[in-house]
Amino acid sequence: MTANIRVTVWNEFQHEKTNATVRAIYPEGMHTAIANALRGFGDMDVRTATLDEPEHGLTDEILKTTDVLIWWGHKAHDLVRDEVVARVKKHALAGMGLIVLHSGHASKIFKALMGTGCSLKWRESNDREILWVTSPGHPILQGIDDHVIIPVEEMYGEHFDVPEPDETILISSFSGGEVFRSALTYRRGAGRIFYFRPGHESYPTYHHKEVQRIIANGVRWAAPVSNSAAQTYGNRGPLP
Amino acid sequence: MTANIRVTVWNEFQHEKTNATVRAIYPEGMHTAIANALRGFGDMDVRTATLDEPEHGLTDEILKTTDVLIWWGHKAHDLVRDEVVARVKKHALAGMGLIVLHSGHASKIFKALMGTGCSLKWRESNDREILWVTSPGHPILQGIDDHVIIPVEEMYGEHFDVPEPDETILISSFSGGEVFRSALTYRRGAGRIFYFRPGHESYPTYHHKEVQRIIANGVRWAAPVSNSAAQTYGNRGPLP
Amino acid sequence: MTANIRVTVWNEFQHEKTNATVRAIYPEGMHTAIANALRGFGDMDVRTATLDEPEHGLTDEILKTTDVLIWWGHKAHDLVRDEVVARVKKHALAGMGLIVLHSGHASKIFKALMGTGCSLKWRESNDREILWVTSPGHPILQGIDDHVIIPVEEMYGEHFDVPEPDETILISSFSGGEVFRSALTYRRGAGRIFYFRPGHESYPTYHHKEVQRIIANGVRWAAPVSNSAAQTYGNRGPLP
Amino acid sequence: MTANIRVTVWNEFQHEKTNATVRAIYPEGMHTAIANALRGFGDMDVRTATLDEPEHGLTDEILKTTDVLIWWGHKAHDLVRDEVVARVKKHALAGMGLIVLHSGHASKIFKALMGTGCSLKWRESNDREILWVTSPGHPILQGIDDHVIIPVEEMYGEHFDVPEPDETILISSFSGGEVFRSALTYRRGAGRIFYFRPGHESYPTYHHKEVQRIIANGVRWAAPVSNSAAQTYGNRGPLP
Repeated sequence: MTANIRVTVWNEFQHEKTNATVRAIYPEGMHTAIANALRGFGDMDVRTATLDEPEHGLTDEILKTTDVLIWWGHKAHDLVRDEVVARVKKHALAGMGLIVLHSGHASKIFKALMGTGCSLKWRESNDREILWVTSPGHPILQGIDDHVIIPVEEMYGEHFDVPEPDETILISSFSGGEVFRSALTYRRGAGRIFYFRPGHESYPTYHHKEVQRIIANGVRWAAPVSNSAAQTYGNRGPLP
Repeated sequence: MTANIRVTVWNEFQHEKTNATVRAIYPEGMHTAIANALRGFGDMDVRTATLDEPEHGLTDEILKTTDVLIWWGHKAHDLVRDEVVARVKKHALAGMGLIVLHSGHASKIFKALMGTGCSLKWRESNDREILWVTSPGHPILQGIDDHVIIPVEEMYGEHFDVPEPDETILISSFSGGEVFRSALTYRRGAGRIFYFRPGHESYPTYHHKEVQRIIANGVRWAAPVSNSAAQTYGNRGPLP
Repeated sequence: MTANIRVTVWNEFQHEKTNATVRAIYPEGMHTAIANALRGFGDMDVRTATLDEPEHGLTDEILKTTDVLIWWGHKAHDLVRDEVVARVKKHALAGMGLIVLHSGHASKIFKALMGTGCSLKWRESNDREILWVTSPGHPILQGIDDHVIIPVEEMYGEHFDVPEPDETILISSFSGGEVFRSALTYRRGAGRIFYFRPGHESYPTYHHKEVQRIIANGVRWAAPVSNSAAQTYGNRGPLP
Repeated sequence: MTANIRVTVWNEFQHEKTNATVRAIYPEGMHTAIANALRGFGDMDVRTATLDEPEHGLTDEILKTTDVLIWWGHKAHDLVRDEVVARVKKHALAGMGLIVLHSGHASKIFKALMGTGCSLKWRESNDREILWVTSPGHPILQGIDDHVIIPVEEMYGEHFDVPEPDETILISSFSGGEVFRSALTYRRGAGRIFYFRPGHESYPTYHHKEVQRIIANGVRWAAPVSNSAAQTYGNRGPLP
């Protein structure tokens, strides 16, 4: 019997407290909506953590028992403490999976792992988003047809200032004519990083079944493999 | 003084002979339009070759004196003789640059170098194409703004069945909501390959100034470097 | 309960019939040694196939029920019939995993999928090979320390004429001072390809426990995911 | 006439002041040795800068007029001020080329651009290093044969904790049996980064002709292309 994957869903959980529109869509917060969706798949043990908790809910103890961390942040990026970012980065490089959602592109943790500015173009005007599969057979796309339609979303447009991805598996078009690389994979250290674009707070994107499935597949893809023995560094003598 | 780059523009040159619409746009053939545009940049010596010439105009002598070969084919892919394809492939792997345009995605030479099916979705219905820069600073995009608009073109849509590119430098959207990775680079052997999407025969795409500039930049990028000494293979003894 | 992975181990099975040294190491053929090792892991159903069987043992029916095909060939590459190569390629691009071992680098199927010459330097003189991990955390390296030593092996040296791999996960050194990228991954179409260097016929390499483990991990990594729905191509109208 | 490439060679310049062995090899510092070698190629205007100068010699004015920055640091990484690192990173992402040499792998600027720990194994015991070409035809290897031998050098061994490179163009073996990816390229933002391994302070590596040639080729490869217009980000309306 395979053990369940241990997932922690982190959300800054700010919009939901101050914006009635967002609260109507996600009464218990986006993290809860995402966590409940993941629990429905049956192979994950899911916890949540938020900005306002002590240490943002991301103590070393929590991270040590997290296989995959999901990150949603937007207007409070600057309030995330640098030592927590450093801690998350340390665990990610040691093998913990990391899924960065939507506006998390501008989070401290994503920028620290990418090394670039991670900027993009954006517009809030109810664009239709179509995500096209560019990598059939990729495990993150299991059960997904050749495209996914999200009726209304915020537009993100290229250039997306990230390193050339290891794999570009979905590319979006928007009603306004823009395009965006929307599902990207990176390996950093012994860890796997999955960036997934959809999920503006004012749209019900995380209730979308195919979006939920892609996130669940991403969790399975990002879950760590135990060979940290290979991460050995420093001074050493010649082999015998 | 740097020597000019020696370019050979190959075109199957069939539509122009039988289709009045195409002939009106390219009276001397697409190859001549592309060759004349490239000559205008001043740093290239440009020849042309076509399907109906002996050996399709691609003798070993011609290929030996070609730095970069440009390929346009569409309805006559099957008429290109296998020994000519093998000859072009041999020179490409030895360092000759290769630029494959538009419907050349389904040519024998491109499929032989990619190893995949190279299929895609398509539609001829006057879509507007917008090509977005995904790799600022790339030499093939020198002098290009953050996007290029082609008012009417054939639609190509993902999935484009090619290997993950070394670099994805332009992604297109089309009026119908599709996306396509439109400018891709690959290195194979000692040679460089640039796939560039635009250029359906029934539209004046090769008269478009930015399209011409991208092809010219591509020629400069694909031109070979002389270190074939590194391509050494076979049985050998230990180093002294 | 997860279904077992269906593996077919293909071997040209020539050296073992004519060379007493090889037969002493692999009395039932290398394919049988590899198949037995894989059976020991408990999560695979393993068959074998060889050159001398009808259709080389690789009928469409066999390939349809193969999740991962393992390929060992050396002196009989030219005897593999082109239609069987085309058949294997079709299944590989449709999602069947393919693991190419050692001298399979020069097989028709590997060259057809890579698009390059796939040549290399080599020497048979009992070099010690050390394989160093360059991608900790990669699932193919699960349970492997930071290096693996094979006491005696044939030397393969760079340049290895293959496309830049998606991932380079092991690099070998040899006693003579050469290096070689020994474990490489590629995605082509919906399929995954794993090239793994060790395994000259005159050494007991496939009895080596870590070599067996890496091949088993490779099988799990290359096993297909069922979303061939994304491989849709051809003419189509605009979205509604 | 093409303008010369403007190069700034930065060296922490500490070992040379305190260690007689190093000073004997590089009486005017490693930066001066590298700068003089580059001047000999005739197509570069070369300046130097060092840690002890005001702002480490890397003012905004200097960086604005630098096409390619070369970085050598080792024991004084921590003394490089964070605001200078941030300034160099800003210029690198905007298009300035960056060549990081040897122990610069652990510099603040390299780690900030890579996003990983950048650690490795090492040993100072006069290993022979052989650098093997893995990318024939690459412009950085122009004029280089299929391998380069450095008679004595410090050993660096895998795992080298960096992201999967865009291109791996040289891999080293060492007498002790280790391997190392020694020449790596990355694109970040609009800038190009070249990591090149050789150059321990106690060996005359930067007097080695092929090492000098590879650095000079690297400068030409990393020099920027002027299309920063593509780096446009932020809120914007739909296209007309």
